[in-house]
Amino acid sequence: MTVQRGWNFLQTPGPTNIPNRILTAMHRPAVEFLGPEFMDFAKQLFADLKTVFKTEAGYPFVYAANGHGAWEAGITNVLAPGDKVLVPETGRFAHSWTYMAEKLQIQCEMLESDWRTAFDPAAIGERLSRDKGHEIKAVLLVHTDTATGITSDVAGVRKAIDDAGHPALLMVDTIASLMTTDYRMDEWGVDVTVAAGQKGLMLPPGLGFCAVSEKALAVSDANTAMPRSYWDWRDRLDPKVFYKAFCGTAPEHLLFGLGAAIEMLQEEGYEAVFARHYRLSRAIHAAVDTWAQAGGVELFARNPEDRSNSVTPILVDAAHDPMKFRVICRERFNLGLGNGMGKYEKEMFRIGHMGDLNEAMVFGTLGAVEAGLKLAGIPYAPGGVDAAIEVLTAD
Amino acid sequence: MTVQRGWNFLQTPGPTNIPNRILTAMHRPAVEFLGPEFMDFAKQLFADLKTVFKTEAGYPFVYAANGHGAWEAGITNVLAPGDKVLVPETGRFAHSWTYMAEKLQIQCEMLESDWRTAFDPAAIGERLSRDKGHEIKAVLLVHTDTATGITSDVAGVRKAIDDAGHPALLMVDTIASLMTTDYRMDEWGVDVTVAAGQKGLMLPPGLGFCAVSEKALAVSDANTAMPRSYWDWRDRLDPKVFYKAFCGTAPEHLLFGLGAAIEMLQEEGYEAVFARHYRLSRAIHAAVDTWAQAGGVELFARNPEDRSNSVTPILVDAAHDPMKFRVICRERFNLGLGNGMGKYEKEMFRIGHMGDLNEAMVFGTLGAVEAGLKLAGIPYAPGGVDAAIEVLTAD
Amino acid sequence: MTVQRGWNFLQTPGPTNIPNRILTAMHRPAVEFLGPEFMDFAKQLFADLKTVFKTEAGYPFVYAANGHGAWEAGITNVLAPGDKVLVPETGRFAHSWTYMAEKLQIQCEMLESDWRTAFDPAAIGERLSRDKGHEIKAVLLVHTDTATGITSDVAGVRKAIDDAGHPALLMVDTIASLMTTDYRMDEWGVDVTVAAGQKGLMLPPGLGFCAVSEKALAVSDANTAMPRSYWDWRDRLDPKVFYKAFCGTAPEHLLFGLGAAIEMLQEEGYEAVFARHYRLSRAIHAAVDTWAQAGGVELFARNPEDRSNSVTPILVDAAHDPMKFRVICRERFNLGLGNGMGKYEKEMFRIGHMGDLNEAMVFGTLGAVEAGLKLAGIPYAPGGVDAAIEVLTAD
Amino acid sequence: MTVQRGWNFLQTPGPTNIPNRILTAMHRPAVEFLGPEFMDFAKQLFADLKTVFKTEAGYPFVYAANGHGAWEAGITNVLAPGDKVLVPETGRFAHSWTYMAEKLQIQCEMLESDWRTAFDPAAIGERLSRDKGHEIKAVLLVHTDTATGITSDVAGVRKAIDDAGHPALLMVDTIASLMTTDYRMDEWGVDVTVAAGQKGLMLPPGLGFCAVSEKALAVSDANTAMPRSYWDWRDRLDPKVFYKAFCGTAPEHLLFGLGAAIEMLQEEGYEAVFARHYRLSRAIHAAVDTWAQAGGVELFARNPEDRSNSVTPILVDAAHDPMKFRVICRERFNLGLGNGMGKYEKEMFRIGHMGDLNEAMVFGTLGAVEAGLKLAGIPYAPGGVDAAIEVLTAD
Repeated sequence: MTVQRGWNFLQTPGPTNIPNRILTAMHRPAVEFLGPEFMDFAKQLFADLKTVFKTEAGYPFVYAANGHGAWEAGITNVLAPGDKVLVPETGRFAHSWTYMAEKLQIQCEMLESDWRTAFDPAAIGERLSRDKGHEIKAVLLVHTDTATGITSDVAGVRKAIDDAGHPALLMVDTIASLMTTDYRMDEWGVDVTVAAGQKGLMLPPGLGFCAVSEKALAVSDANTAMPRSYWDWRDRLDPKVFYKAFCGTAPEHLLFGLGAAIEMLQEEGYEAVFARHYRLSRAIHAAVDTWAQAGGVELFARNPEDRSNSVTPILVDAAHDPMKFRVICRERFNLGLGNGMGKYEKEMFRIGHMGDLNEAMVFGTLGAVEAGLKLAGIPYAPGGVDAAIEVLTAD
Repeated sequence: MTVQRGWNFLQTPGPTNIPNRILTAMHRPAVEFLGPEFMDFAKQLFADLKTVFKTEAGYPFVYAANGHGAWEAGITNVLAPGDKVLVPETGRFAHSWTYMAEKLQIQCEMLESDWRTAFDPAAIGERLSRDKGHEIKAVLLVHTDTATGITSDVAGVRKAIDDAGHPALLMVDTIASLMTTDYRMDEWGVDVTVAAGQKGLMLPPGLGFCAVSEKALAVSDANTAMPRSYWDWRDRLDPKVFYKAFCGTAPEHLLFGLGAAIEMLQEEGYEAVFARHYRLSRAIHAAVDTWAQAGGVELFARNPEDRSNSVTPILVDAAHDPMKFRVICRERFNLGLGNGMGKYEKEMFRIGHMGDLNEAMVFGTLGAVEAGLKLAGIPYAPGGVDAAIEVLTAD
Repeated sequence: MTVQRGWNFLQTPGPTNIPNRILTAMHRPAVEFLGPEFMDFAKQLFADLKTVFKTEAGYPFVYAANGHGAWEAGITNVLAPGDKVLVPETGRFAHSWTYMAEKLQIQCEMLESDWRTAFDPAAIGERLSRDKGHEIKAVLLVHTDTATGITSDVAGVRKAIDDAGHPALLMVDTIASLMTTDYRMDEWGVDVTVAAGQKGLMLPPGLGFCAVSEKALAVSDANTAMPRSYWDWRDRLDPKVFYKAFCGTAPEHLLFGLGAAIEMLQEEGYEAVFARHYRLSRAIHAAVDTWAQAGGVELFARNPEDRSNSVTPILVDAAHDPMKFRVICRERFNLGLGNGMGKYEKEMFRIGHMGDLNEAMVFGTLGAVEAGLKLAGIPYAPGGVDAAIEVLTAD
Repeated sequence: MTVQRGWNFLQTPGPTNIPNRILTAMHRPAVEFLGPEFMDFAKQLFADLKTVFKTEAGYPFVYAANGHGAWEAGITNVLAPGDKVLVPETGRFAHSWTYMAEKLQIQCEMLESDWRTAFDPAAIGERLSRDKGHEIKAVLLVHTDTATGITSDVAGVRKAIDDAGHPALLMVDTIASLMTTDYRMDEWGVDVTVAAGQKGLMLPPGLGFCAVSEKALAVSDANTAMPRSYWDWRDRLDPKVFYKAFCGTAPEHLLFGLGAAIEMLQEEGYEAVFARHYRLSRAIHAAVDTWAQAGGVELFARNPEDRSNSVTPILVDAAHDPMKFRVICRERFNLGLGNGMGKYEKEMFRIGHMGDLNEAMVFGTLGAVEAGLKLAGIPYAPGGVDAAIEVLTAD
């Protein structure tokens, strides 16, 4: 095996580069999880979490889990076996969430779409308008689909639901968008937000989140048909016994890390964080568009305005194997890239650019990708880094 | 607030003292969770985990969760809404597991018992013998109940089930016993073992485990009635796509910690680990028995042979408030002790002695407890540490 | 080799128990050592260091070195080959400092003393009174001699020098006393203070310090006869080019650790730190006095008021080998103790109690020592921890 | 102040990027520095250090110090006040070493040279041939001068000394070359090698080294005229009492880090380490040569074959201020670059490329430098990264 030196450029779409400040916050003894020191810390953390989701009215829940666990938490609280939901086909993760919902005995109807453009809210409105009996209990929307690198219009979907006069809950998966892109739970009228720690929040994997509107909480309270305990919101919401928020032992160290993460994000400023992600992502798009001039690669998302702040999938000419290319990047350049997913599994690689990232890291990533393209024999027009420099020095 | 100096003696029954070697194993960048390096590491980890449970035939599952999550995983896989189970009343955690099972729509029958002696397997055999229709699907046994500090006889329960000719599954919660006390899943015929990382395994909280017999796995496969996905065993058992073992992003850092923990336990030797826990626990019992001569405190477990290797609950004379005593220990001596639980909440404190513990730490703990008793005005006969020294220098 | 579990009780007189907060402060990338961020940090550190020595008029110097290096720094700046100094025989470290001074071509006159009582300042005054020609350039006084556990009277020595009307510089080694015992450089009229990081300052070894009066600095400026560069004060004191304070690359990480250490000490309060050390040391003395009733061990320092806050040497009956005893403590109880030094090498062991220490750690240490005495067959009267509990619960 | 995110690209010529493996090796409690565990570790470390210097006959010494301390150690052991030495003017560090030697009362004769080409050994031979009385005791040669980025020919200098039939010792400063460039102490006949930890050895600053030939050791033994103790070799070489190697308390944590560093270097293979540094440095040179086509910047070292593996100084057109450029790189791109030194202070910046570095880090560095040049308005021809990609994909 090759000995690797220097930093591993982990440009997968999660987990992401973990700041040392977060790792040191976690490098400490455990504490009494029922003790006053930890209780005070955790209460403040929950207050801070509300700002992360931009919700004042909502309730945040923190799970020792991952994003899939948070998905299940969202579903089991507000849906019961046999309930029907609508899933806009944003990409692979719309299918994955559907797979899970069906295992939980939910009936899922997918609104089909090509994966290469943002989902059109009108299609949701149209379908809901036809659901006169209000059989559809919820819309499950992936904000940024990690498989496509496309960000959909949450506010637009809310409007479409409202315009259709439909009571369906709006559930939004922000796993790949949170803290890379503006997200406004209250303003956009989201009922259930699902998230995880290992992407924009820069944490080691192991935390899942729900943020929940009053309306969704009431639905959960009334939902006796779906068996659940670990995920159950009401049990975790005892204002007198705060430690119940964790349903057992709290994942202390990940929470210490989360505290450090939020502190860092607040120091930078949420809007500055989003702006940085936007700026860096546009530099990456510019590089890919440059390479694309030779025909060997192509940016997956057709419309520039749909492209996400957090991940950039790239199609590779059928004559070439993206997996071989990724192995070259990993072994020669200590660079980790994401694989293609779903129907594009064998035609795509993805560059993640979430979390603790800066300009020089982008230049390093792009340089290594370009060098990898060269070694893999995939046609590309040189100058990707030059294009990125242009973007990142423009004011 | 008092500034604390020196080590925090975290003698709660979990989380426990985390060795620096585990914390340093976790202080590292994330890795590609689908990459070959991590896959190899995780496969080996699962192989090693089997030795932890002393199972060759069984399957280990690792969850980003806590012990409550692992409880839910065990229940949702092998039981369906409406199913009936038997729960021996070992103590508070028998009630907690029951609470969870009932939320998952399982019918629970508790076999009552005083909490101060080990549960008698004969009572289980007797009840199962009367269940001619085999309505009872499982026995849910807590190996060491953290609330009582009593360890029950798993092999005896298995024998009672078998002698009754009953097909009930045997599910055992080893959260507070694993890696402090010998546990032999295969030999004792356990079907589902539930465990967590933050006690004998010395990890930061955030991992839950199931270890599952072939029989239990088959039950799970046939169990279509219980909605579940995150917890589902079969989905995690794809031999061709190992990463599915984590149902989404793997909790990498906790797994790196787990790898270090198992390495440490194997270096010491599992039997040596159990012997150390036994030895240290007997020293603590001796100290409490010494103090008890003055009547202010009393070891909760009536029979010395029932007393666990991992936690020692102590009853306090009704004239005194164990909570005030614990505050003194925390604030004056940087010592964390467990609270009383369940019906003994206001009459008890508990000394945890699991995990990365040695003689001098026990002396320090006992000295601080004795000093705390003095300051709290709780009657005790001095000499607790002297008694512990006697035990720990005897060969 | 025995596998050790739990904390290592490192009760040697340095290095001492390093708080995790200091280790995490050091677990970080290097920085530009000439950059503005580091310069600002270092300037503040030097300002804070002045409070550690209780000097306003003096100058602190920080060396990548150890205590021996700091000794050499002190000598080479204010003394020239052939100069004569007076060394009160406080114990082994008076001899070690003398050894070094002689290698640096300084003539040393030792004022002999038994090691078991604090040095009498009158003997210094008497000797200086006889030095009519002022040939003696300095008095080299060890504040707390680590080999004897006795603290001498710095203010008394200053008064004796002044009363003798002698211009000798007063140089004080505070390596084993700093931040365990009150030390007032300005008030006590010390010219050169020598210190190191790995004891009361709780740092990993690698830093040495001088704190220097105006008078000493002037002597150094005039001292062209002694070849020196790395140690030279004036070169490090360029107010316009602060980075020269380090004579080359700064030991950044140890300085980050030092910053955390001073922060912790200030949070607790220096006087509270001294009081804690006093209290804990008296508990240890009480334990040793208890054991001593059986005749096998004896506290080395004859007068209780001479006993230091930081280390307690204990004489062992000639029939027994303290080294064997220490091996038992190390291998059976994970307890590190100091060896005997100098003429008491084969008759003594020492308990260090400096730095990040609390009551429970003292109880643990004493329990393990008592258990070790038992296993080594060294006669002792039991009850050491009980005696310590008495001391530490008295108000 | 701008909040910085992502990695700090610390491309100064020391300290360098510290691998997390080294930082974690240092994140641990202190140990008994006289105990058997540490003694065994340290003995092995000294054995391994000999391979670092490629010496079998020589003796390694490790100082809690920095490179300046190691310089002083070298000088004070083999030279006495009034001794004369020859210093080839390799660049700024030849002057700095001279400054130190003169403070130590050594007479230094500098052999002048332009800084932009490697020093010609013939000039040394010529000068020594004229020293019939052998007044010159040593030649002080800087292997790679950090200020010029030029590596001189050690073997050539040895040959020149020998050809001149002159007994002068050859002292070589490898601070900026060790473990970036092949260095063969025995084969090249070096008497005293001076080094430090914070460059090719990737350590936090705080360790200095000497490696010493038998001949040099004998000279030191006979050298009674130079006052020294901390630096003295013989005192540190007691084979029976190994701990004397540290003259007091050992810098344990830096040594733990050093152990990890050597382990990493051996895993990669020393020759592979040199080859990697060569390869990466040539890519950087290619980038600078590309930029240089527009006339605003120029690679300082005139001859490509003189250019070092470890640092690349770059001259900036007089119309521009390299300091302002460096501030842009630091504040906009989180990139630290070296300043100009000596007579080129206001005309130069330097890119360090030592230690734990890989291709993608080089691409990132070059991209940020190019972006910085653009923002600073310094003329450059674009395409630096493209040129580096060419070099690093060529086989």
